[in-house]
Amino acid sequence: MTTSPGGRVTAGVLGGSGYTGREVTRLLDGHAGVDLVFTTSRSEAGNPSSARTLAFSQPDEGAVLEVDVVFLCLPHGEAAAWADRIVGHGPRVIDLTADHRPGSGREDGAVYGLNEWNREAVADAQLVANPGCYPTGVLLSLLPLHEAGILDPDRLIVVNASSGVTGAGRVPRADLLFAEVSGDFRAYAWGNRHRHLLEMRALLPGVDLLFQPHLLPVPRGILETMVLPVRDGVDAGEVRRIWASRYEFEPAVLPLEDRLPALSDVVGTDGLALGVTDVADTREPAVMAGAALDNLGKGAAGQAVQNMNAIFGWPTERGIRCP
Amino acid sequence: MTTSPGGRVTAGVLGGSGYTGREVTRLLDGHAGVDLVFTTSRSEAGNPSSARTLAFSQPDEGAVLEVDVVFLCLPHGEAAAWADRIVGHGPRVIDLTADHRPGSGREDGAVYGLNEWNREAVADAQLVANPGCYPTGVLLSLLPLHEAGILDPDRLIVVNASSGVTGAGRVPRADLLFAEVSGDFRAYAWGNRHRHLLEMRALLPGVDLLFQPHLLPVPRGILETMVLPVRDGVDAGEVRRIWASRYEFEPAVLPLEDRLPALSDVVGTDGLALGVTDVADTREPAVMAGAALDNLGKGAAGQAVQNMNAIFGWPTERGIRCP
Amino acid sequence: MTTSPGGRVTAGVLGGSGYTGREVTRLLDGHAGVDLVFTTSRSEAGNPSSARTLAFSQPDEGAVLEVDVVFLCLPHGEAAAWADRIVGHGPRVIDLTADHRPGSGREDGAVYGLNEWNREAVADAQLVANPGCYPTGVLLSLLPLHEAGILDPDRLIVVNASSGVTGAGRVPRADLLFAEVSGDFRAYAWGNRHRHLLEMRALLPGVDLLFQPHLLPVPRGILETMVLPVRDGVDAGEVRRIWASRYEFEPAVLPLEDRLPALSDVVGTDGLALGVTDVADTREPAVMAGAALDNLGKGAAGQAVQNMNAIFGWPTERGIRCP
Amino acid sequence: MTTSPGGRVTAGVLGGSGYTGREVTRLLDGHAGVDLVFTTSRSEAGNPSSARTLAFSQPDEGAVLEVDVVFLCLPHGEAAAWADRIVGHGPRVIDLTADHRPGSGREDGAVYGLNEWNREAVADAQLVANPGCYPTGVLLSLLPLHEAGILDPDRLIVVNASSGVTGAGRVPRADLLFAEVSGDFRAYAWGNRHRHLLEMRALLPGVDLLFQPHLLPVPRGILETMVLPVRDGVDAGEVRRIWASRYEFEPAVLPLEDRLPALSDVVGTDGLALGVTDVADTREPAVMAGAALDNLGKGAAGQAVQNMNAIFGWPTERGIRCP
Repeated sequence: MTTSPGGRVTAGVLGGSGYTGREVTRLLDGHAGVDLVFTTSRSEAGNPSSARTLAFSQPDEGAVLEVDVVFLCLPHGEAAAWADRIVGHGPRVIDLTADHRPGSGREDGAVYGLNEWNREAVADAQLVANPGCYPTGVLLSLLPLHEAGILDPDRLIVVNASSGVTGAGRVPRADLLFAEVSGDFRAYAWGNRHRHLLEMRALLPGVDLLFQPHLLPVPRGILETMVLPVRDGVDAGEVRRIWASRYEFEPAVLPLEDRLPALSDVVGTDGLALGVTDVADTREPAVMAGAALDNLGKGAAGQAVQNMNAIFGWPTERGIRCP
Repeated sequence: MTTSPGGRVTAGVLGGSGYTGREVTRLLDGHAGVDLVFTTSRSEAGNPSSARTLAFSQPDEGAVLEVDVVFLCLPHGEAAAWADRIVGHGPRVIDLTADHRPGSGREDGAVYGLNEWNREAVADAQLVANPGCYPTGVLLSLLPLHEAGILDPDRLIVVNASSGVTGAGRVPRADLLFAEVSGDFRAYAWGNRHRHLLEMRALLPGVDLLFQPHLLPVPRGILETMVLPVRDGVDAGEVRRIWASRYEFEPAVLPLEDRLPALSDVVGTDGLALGVTDVADTREPAVMAGAALDNLGKGAAGQAVQNMNAIFGWPTERGIRCP
Repeated sequence: MTTSPGGRVTAGVLGGSGYTGREVTRLLDGHAGVDLVFTTSRSEAGNPSSARTLAFSQPDEGAVLEVDVVFLCLPHGEAAAWADRIVGHGPRVIDLTADHRPGSGREDGAVYGLNEWNREAVADAQLVANPGCYPTGVLLSLLPLHEAGILDPDRLIVVNASSGVTGAGRVPRADLLFAEVSGDFRAYAWGNRHRHLLEMRALLPGVDLLFQPHLLPVPRGILETMVLPVRDGVDAGEVRRIWASRYEFEPAVLPLEDRLPALSDVVGTDGLALGVTDVADTREPAVMAGAALDNLGKGAAGQAVQNMNAIFGWPTERGIRCP
Repeated sequence: MTTSPGGRVTAGVLGGSGYTGREVTRLLDGHAGVDLVFTTSRSEAGNPSSARTLAFSQPDEGAVLEVDVVFLCLPHGEAAAWADRIVGHGPRVIDLTADHRPGSGREDGAVYGLNEWNREAVADAQLVANPGCYPTGVLLSLLPLHEAGILDPDRLIVVNASSGVTGAGRVPRADLLFAEVSGDFRAYAWGNRHRHLLEMRALLPGVDLLFQPHLLPVPRGILETMVLPVRDGVDAGEVRRIWASRYEFEPAVLPLEDRLPALSDVVGTDGLALGVTDVADTREPAVMAGAALDNLGKGAAGQAVQNMNAIFGWPTERGIRCP
């Protein structure tokens, strides 16, 4: 294993030309503890990458096995084969694809890298399954409330989610051309059929969830507006206190005082903004919660860097952009 | 009263320079049965309007009282005073502001112009309160289901709504500048405090509603995604059949077969697209419904023209753009 | 040849699913003199087209030869083969591709369909080469000035052109994804290498042209800002008078009084807006001219319909949307 | 004068709530050598600013005179009065408004802060006039070529410039609302009447310039495409060599190899990208040059920070984001 002088570690990115790979490459390139050794792209090898002085290279198994940590930003499905070749041979692996997430069927042997929740387990993991962008917002919002027992388990939680277009990846598709997306707004994966539900349900067993994603005409950012069925007497203030307590020392999670978050609170950062308000004049008691994050930041690359920081014992905010 | 030769009617627009007023002016200008006599703007008098050959004029009470029908597109609050001066003196009045809508306190004497629902009453009305953009989608979706008794009255209906920026009007505001809206997506009027709720509740008494609007970075269009708590055994097919039956002969309402609608189905038209799907794996039985409309079309000017058509006995689709 | 009752003609579209094909299909569908018999798409056959009640069909040579007029909206390069099969066998052909335009090498036998310039020749043509979007704006601006002899032949005309994304077609390309185009603005085909230059130069022999196109983050619309080297003593007023005289009776060409045009003057219409201003404080005498058009309207489908109108003896504005 | 321990300096921003002021505040907040003491806003005093932990304050002359450097980001016209009160009383002043730029009539006593050109004079200046966004791109492109004598002085240089909307400031205006700008593209200040021409001409005496700005539907970024009349025998390669030589050690200026720049090369950075290409088939010899910069970055706040770095003897790239 190559280790860098002065406590630095070496890192590589497999799949550095997609939106996620470019963002991971950029963050690692600017990270004070990391020497970025390679970022690969089969189709763009030789071209400049998003690192300042590193060109894309062809993936090379020898080089891969020599670094301290490998980030998998490949198309979903290709990461598992690479993880099999790497795990046990030295490098830690942080997989940003869906291949090892809860519900994938391959989650055994991987630690689910929901950083603020699982940081200690991540520190010792050989293979980290970095969470999906949508589940990151939903789970960091709901897990503390679920644990505190303030949600009514008999009623449905409605999550209305909207994502910018980079969430769909960089492979050319006619329905993602500028002229198709500009001026439009559409639901997709309707009927509770988005694969991220598996991940949410695995972490929130017994919770009745309805998750409806939409495609926004913006490049990046996710807003999730959640109708939370609360037990009698629970109000937004109690939700806010639970979040404030749980995330007091978490620099990447920002509970807001008195409003729902917006994309503009978080786009271009690696943070998650949370907000909650009471709801007037409903018979069923409910509060309205909101989570906003950059799908490429906290929803992907930022959380991956937090997981790397956990592995190497660094502060969680090192190399990320807090809101 | 001035009447035009050949069964034509004369019309005027008060407040023709806002987004709604421009759209009403444009539709009336192209309507085969109408002579558009004036469209007013205090600040832009003398400048070209959105009618092909008519400049904006100053509002003039004498001219107003001579036409057959007057459309009020003034700022909310100014329409009531004009309506008081006009009603009973000849012209029919179609008020596109909130001044006479259910819940306004001034709804007595006005007929609520939810066209597909109230067309016969509109035909005889001296004063029509044209519905709000958001309620048009919600009410045309829910009223037939409510009447059919398939909704569970004990549970909450969650309406997540998103609107393009013209819904906020054309008065300069820093938060609606291009650089503030582009790339952003935000909730507003959170906590069930949007004034359109009054209008929805007046038409859906006893229904438990949570309405959460958002601002989209698009010029026009509304998408409303609704989680409907249905009675046991009710599925999306039944919703679809109820809509199909109710709207079979309604050219401005388009129930879709098997998907939720998108803005691109309706922007630039005066139609409403409806869709519904089943929802997998929830314990509480629910279906997901969607309504899409152009806030300036079916949500304002298009429905106003339908109401004028009802008054003068013309087919509802005359002069509007069906999807 | 099928002819419709009452002087109507039958029409078909080959390639109805691209941006141009959809616009042609929509205009023909709404044209009072036309029965649209087919609009083809190999990949989307059976799906709804942009005509209200017509689904896409597979191209069928028998059906093609039975209509009165065929519009070719195929990918550049495929139109020539179809034209060879059709011309001489009955239908008139209006080719919206580059295959028969001046400079293509196949322009013999085709009439260049710059409608306001060539209308009489178009009326008798078996095969019409519909102009490119960029040349339509440049040529309708410059040809009258060139004929009037007010341009200085020794100096360079600089045309800075910017186009919305539909100008690049609907084939998926990574560089045209929403996330790549949104927020960006780029030049392309730099160094005077855009193929539309052949077309411009063929109509403006001896004129020294520099044409620089850019890609705009909008769905549709072209703005061309042109620096015109004029002879001593020529000012913007003279340009305006020449245009006003030449286009006085042309409903699709709109010379503006005292300003340069913007996309918002023309997007969604089939018109061309022209403007010109004097330029202060230059030593070389110049005026600044501007042309705006919708690349899918006057730049493609609108002009094609004008050419069809010429063939069948109808007014040039029939079935198009004048600004 | 307050000086910070460890060689740090204290800074303040007058007018921190506009687009420029927010960007300056953000950069100073992250600058390793600066203690940001205040950022003012009359209307938003008490609200959070774009600095991480500093709220907006009311402007206070006593506090202003105690810092080492003051940045003026006020509306054009208000800066001069503040400069009069500050200059000579201790703090250095960097004025980001037009009030002291060449051609303003108040340029005496101010050093024009075109950083890569005037850095040594800036180091000693009490009052720096930070250049306009458009002139920064034009002048850094043309000044080295002008000095090298490769431009033909008898012919016109055509600059076609396009800017994102933040260039127009944050004061509410109806024509800058999202619904007006989205989908549009317009020229403005036509006829060579933009005030930035004064600034360009002051630095390029004797050069014949035509400058035509446009408004882009993007939040930020400027692209300037310039047709350069060159002397016989001069090609793009020579331009490239001159730039490469002049800017070899300038981290904020990035000459590109073989293409024109795009907004995406620079938005979000404080750098300027330059490109140049030959032009085929013109009779008048010309090359096409392009300059891209972020109007809020290199076009305003980034260059202001470079000027502060010059004053305090720091490397020019400290605290800015190079592309």
